[in-house]
Amino acid sequence: MERIEVFCPATIANLNCGFDVLGLALEGVGDVMHIAKTAQSGIVIKQLSGPSLPLEAEKNVAGVAALSLLKALDIKQGFEISIEKFIKPGSGIGSSAASAAGAVWGINELLGRPLSRKQLIPFAMEGERLASDVAHADNVAPALLGGFTLVRSYDPLDVLRLPSPEKLVATVIHPQLELKTSDARKLLKSQVELTKAIQQWGNLGGLVSGLYEEDYELIGRSLQDVIVEPNRSLLIPGFDDLRKAITDAGALGCGISGSGPSVFALSKGKKMALAVAEAMRYTYEPLGIPYDVHVSKINREGIHLCSTTA
Amino acid sequence: MERIEVFCPATIANLNCGFDVLGLALEGVGDVMHIAKTAQSGIVIKQLSGPSLPLEAEKNVAGVAALSLLKALDIKQGFEISIEKFIKPGSGIGSSAASAAGAVWGINELLGRPLSRKQLIPFAMEGERLASDVAHADNVAPALLGGFTLVRSYDPLDVLRLPSPEKLVATVIHPQLELKTSDARKLLKSQVELTKAIQQWGNLGGLVSGLYEEDYELIGRSLQDVIVEPNRSLLIPGFDDLRKAITDAGALGCGISGSGPSVFALSKGKKMALAVAEAMRYTYEPLGIPYDVHVSKINREGIHLCSTTA
Repeated sequence: MERIEVFCPATIANLNCGFDVLGLALEGVGDVMHIAKTAQSGIVIKQLSGPSLPLEAEKNVAGVAALSLLKALDIKQGFEISIEKFIKPGSGIGSSAASAAGAVWGINELLGRPLSRKQLIPFAMEGERLASDVAHADNVAPALLGGFTLVRSYDPLDVLRLPSPEKLVATVIHPQLELKTSDARKLLKSQVELTKAIQQWGNLGGLVSGLYEEDYELIGRSLQDVIVEPNRSLLIPGFDDLRKAITDAGALGCGISGSGPSVFALSKGKKMALAVAEAMRYTYEPLGIPYDVHVSKINREGIHLCSTTA
Repeated sequence: MERIEVFCPATIANLNCGFDVLGLALEGVGDVMHIAKTAQSGIVIKQLSGPSLPLEAEKNVAGVAALSLLKALDIKQGFEISIEKFIKPGSGIGSSAASAAGAVWGINELLGRPLSRKQLIPFAMEGERLASDVAHADNVAPALLGGFTLVRSYDPLDVLRLPSPEKLVATVIHPQLELKTSDARKLLKSQVELTKAIQQWGNLGGLVSGLYEEDYELIGRSLQDVIVEPNRSLLIPGFDDLRKAITDAGALGCGISGSGPSVFALSKGKKMALAVAEAMRYTYEPLGIPYDVHVSKINREGIHLCSTTA
């Protein structure tokens, strides 16, 4: 195999009560990457569509992730990575993670799969380090593994794949305003009340149980973030109205995607997810802020081939 | 049915990373209660063995729980509750919970089971309120439901039963020293670091996943309490040596039971649990503090009949 075309899913990290540990991959939103072996060594980045990105490999998240993988495998083979960017950078649904994870997954495929999907996570995290100064795993893990993933521990890195109940459908609204991750970080308090932390881990335990039991009601009851959302939601215009509209439309629960500004909801079944999308539009239309709304099944497979060219 | 004999299991609450939410029931340690219908209304408490308890129904945890149940059901029937107390009060393995849960379960049986086990939890919690001023559910829930239980939320009360992998065996050491719950509470900080709270809920998520997957290694890796144990363990003589001996003996993990002074370990298989018991004894013998050691399977059934007399 000399060349492949890869679908790199958007992802929801900081998933509600699973702040910093829980994420999931989307099926209907993502980038496409074309990765090909080259005669020369090194990484060449090209961009085919979307908002412009740095093309120097050392300054591009896909490039940095790819270089770290090639270095670890001690491989001289070079690759050309061409990106069709559909995920808007800064939207809070894992734009950089899709690029970083897609690059390492695609190269690993072209090399005959020397590493497992889990083993690729640390290299994709190098792309995140370039993008946000923190080599976090909660977007690249679901992008690579699919479904819901839990980062149990960073030291040592221990990522678990959780079940994804079949009827779960996500609705995501992306208000097109710039929200700096650094501003979102400032709204995090370094100390939290023990009583709230207990509520949070009770809910996370309930959510994990709900995913295993395919208990949609339990998943809904557990989607409560009492620690991060109350502060970070202040940065998202109309958040309280949006939450109310989502809940009234029947969603199981909702939350901020990543560090925002996107807001996601989870529903049981597509019909409900479409009603939630309508409610999101109805709430956001009067605000005069441009927005996108996506309805998407959970991507249970992770990054996958679009097509291959021998 | 006029009279029953009930086994009321000891329980481990505050289970490691599941502080305040996660508990489990033991099979090999517990009280026996004899509950019989009486001609007169009201609750009569008798004690057949063990350390002496208040016999006035309103001052006895079993009595208070029983009275709250009878009041809610609006039932005039009276009951005599005779207690063989094998769990030492103050040991940290749910002595009051066993009595409170046993009383409401037994009466419910004699009344033809008007309520489910889950529905009995709030009445058993009234016994806990008498015992410790806090109507907590994390001991009475596993006593009533068996296995591992998670208190996802108190308001409204939402208790989940989690799977109990078959090969898990508990070893519990009870150093016989008085440890006031109020002292243990003083060592709890009202504020915790967000980074530690995140580690804690990552571990709780991992533990719940491990129980569903029957992944003993994952259960072991997840048994890390970075918030409560570092402070509360100061009250337990020799805790650090005990933890090291338990770990060296091969246990999956360990922690403080309830608010102490008992310390529990979880092992895969009985042989390992017995080796852990030996290691506990070896560590505690030189300290000159009397202690008990129990090795017990997980009680997956909850409170159950010993025998019935028609």
